[in-house]
Amino acid sequence: MSAGDNSPVTGAAFAALADWGTSNFRLWLVDRSGAVLAERQSGEGMGTIANPAGFSDVLEGHLQALAAPVGLPVAIAGMAGARTGWIEAPYLTAPADLRALYQGAVRAPSDHRKAFILPGVCQREPLPYDVMRGEETQLAGAVFAGKDSGLFCMPGTHSKWVLLNQGVIEQFATVMTGELFDLISKQSILRLSMAGAERSGAEHPAFVAAAKEAMEPGFSITARLFSIRASGLLSGATATDAAARLSGLLIGAEVAAMRHLVPTGGTVRIVASESLTGLYSAALAASGLSAEPLDGSALVRSGLFAAATALFANQNTDV
Amino acid sequence: MSAGDNSPVTGAAFAALADWGTSNFRLWLVDRSGAVLAERQSGEGMGTIANPAGFSDVLEGHLQALAAPVGLPVAIAGMAGARTGWIEAPYLTAPADLRALYQGAVRAPSDHRKAFILPGVCQREPLPYDVMRGEETQLAGAVFAGKDSGLFCMPGTHSKWVLLNQGVIEQFATVMTGELFDLISKQSILRLSMAGAERSGAEHPAFVAAAKEAMEPGFSITARLFSIRASGLLSGATATDAAARLSGLLIGAEVAAMRHLVPTGGTVRIVASESLTGLYSAALAASGLSAEPLDGSALVRSGLFAAATALFANQNTDV
Repeated sequence: MSAGDNSPVTGAAFAALADWGTSNFRLWLVDRSGAVLAERQSGEGMGTIANPAGFSDVLEGHLQALAAPVGLPVAIAGMAGARTGWIEAPYLTAPADLRALYQGAVRAPSDHRKAFILPGVCQREPLPYDVMRGEETQLAGAVFAGKDSGLFCMPGTHSKWVLLNQGVIEQFATVMTGELFDLISKQSILRLSMAGAERSGAEHPAFVAAAKEAMEPGFSITARLFSIRASGLLSGATATDAAARLSGLLIGAEVAAMRHLVPTGGTVRIVASESLTGLYSAALAASGLSAEPLDGSALVRSGLFAAATALFANQNTDV
Repeated sequence: MSAGDNSPVTGAAFAALADWGTSNFRLWLVDRSGAVLAERQSGEGMGTIANPAGFSDVLEGHLQALAAPVGLPVAIAGMAGARTGWIEAPYLTAPADLRALYQGAVRAPSDHRKAFILPGVCQREPLPYDVMRGEETQLAGAVFAGKDSGLFCMPGTHSKWVLLNQGVIEQFATVMTGELFDLISKQSILRLSMAGAERSGAEHPAFVAAAKEAMEPGFSITARLFSIRASGLLSGATATDAAARLSGLLIGAEVAAMRHLVPTGGTVRIVASESLTGLYSAALAASGLSAEPLDGSALVRSGLFAAATALFANQNTDV
């Protein structure tokens, strides 16, 4: 059955699934087939919770608002499992088998019910060091949907590029594109060139031109950024042009750095919002690659459900 | 004769020279040989002056504090000549002959005395667009000191790399290293890994290791920055290590982007503070290049003096 926000549970709830990131919290109640019975979301990400003891109350409040049965167990993914979160769920080390993600789950100290937090994944070899929390559960969802190999691009504040081989994370890399766009466009000298910029997408000619520029041999982003300011002063480039150009340089540089992980002409699976999917698809196309968009929300729910099934299937949680 | 801050003029003043940047103001009174009679500096950079009319009063206040003679003319370099400064001194376009810098000087609307602002230099070809204001006057000083060819590296908030050929700026590039270091170390996620970092220099092993890493083929700074955070989480790297590594990655990437402008084994002239000169010299050495440090303050004074001589030599300014 389908259910909207705040709908009370009417079916046979099997488990609750929570995607608990730095800035957002999402919760679903699902039945034994994984169908969503009710859902809820809020801005109560890890960053808003002052101390570990607060997590239990926040979670319980949302579960009660959904009339979740007493004793319904919960599977959690994301930053709630960081050292500074509810309780640390130590990283699995790549190569990491996503089908066994649940084996690294850590029981959280809830006063109310059984709650497990799934581990993140870290990389020690090949260097450089890297870490993820949350994306591994989305990827587990992809694996359970049969997409168990290939290159995944998960853009955002800190984009993750992940190489899967038969359900195993072989290697991955984080690219700070989103955070750098935010800092540079709002706080660097370039903000003077993009004040009042309108939101534009992959259709803006400056975006693709800049993405291609960033894919040229010898390109250096730190040596090219200031040209955005100089273009505003010398050629009358508009604020919208400038913002599109910054976006194109950063995303183009990101694709250029990661394209070696997929064969020429290959496909990259993108897990992102619609607008970011558009930008990354265009940059990938400029690099001769195809994009296959995936629904990140469905993936994380699917990855959490698989873990919940492994963790809770042998107990009676119906009421 | 030598003179300290605020010393009254005792010799025969020929001109005043002002280096007027975004955040700082420096003023020298010099005699006909260019010897400094008195000097003064303050934080009254362009950024602190609310409207164009304010420049004249700030300048006059400092000149009077030095007991500058009535009618003593002033040569000015830097952001005071920007569109948002005192009065715009339009850019010369590269290739630009630094011996003729004074020909582009624009008379500022002072109520008190003759004041000229030297032009900046812009680049339209080869793309990308670029601009400088202030550095061209330091470079003119180098030209008049016989250093009229070669690659100059002028690190700072916005580093300038400038190729001179017989006194002509052939091409140049701005690298936003200093500003990016500042933004990333203080405001990005990486701040969590470098809180309380001690100031370290080129002797820190992480600095040179990171600089070399940034010079490897295929290096991408946006794809490598997050490793600083991950190293802190996984390998116990200290805050000081993290800051040295960020500095090394950024400066290494800057040198890697610019090294093609000088032959292998060549020398790059560095115009910077002592600490930055140390860092850049080490990064250049890691790239197989030598560094020749120059005194930026002496250079700008020399460049201003040459312009003042050309502009004011035919008038009687002694008192």
